[in-house]
Amino acid sequence: MPTIVVDVMPKAELLDPQGKAVTGTLSRLGHGAFTEVRIGKRFELTVEGEVTEELLAQARQVADEILSNSVIEDVVGIEVAE
Amino acid sequence: MPTIVVDVMPKAELLDPQGKAVTGTLSRLGHGAFTEVRIGKRFELTVEGEVTEELLAQARQVADEILSNSVIEDVVGIEVAE
Repeated sequence: MPTIVVDVMPKAELLDPQGKAVTGTLSRLGHGAFTEVRIGKRFELTVEGEVTEELLAQARQVADEILSNSVIEDVVGIEVAE
Repeated sequence: MPTIVVDVMPKAELLDPQGKAVTGTLSRLGHGAFTEVRIGKRFELTVEGEVTEELLAQARQVADEILSNSVIEDVVGIEVAE
């Protein structure tokens, strides 16, 4: 079954406290090579049958209006997997 | 600056209550075309300089041991962006 993957990340200009905490932890554990960590969400939407243009448009709308909060988050990717 | 993207999803055999709730909401809002929603995490690890093979191996280790909980989650993707 095809899956539409939607990636949502906190906006670049906003602090990401969860990511900051992980950055600090990695640094303390000797993984300072990773200078910044930001944490977002990955949604996998399963679709029955074919992924049509209309369905992709619907997924885009759902991503913008329901899956993400446009005040603090950006939809950074929508792609079809499988 | 290059970014290593790590995708973590709840294991397929486990319930994902958050995803189930979103599936129900989408269905009620007329988006029943999306029959299942699963919600995972997307980590963006920023790296200074080049992404070497060693750094990628280190990212894989960090993804497996720190960023994901292997009891309930799978690392489904590690890739270099930009």
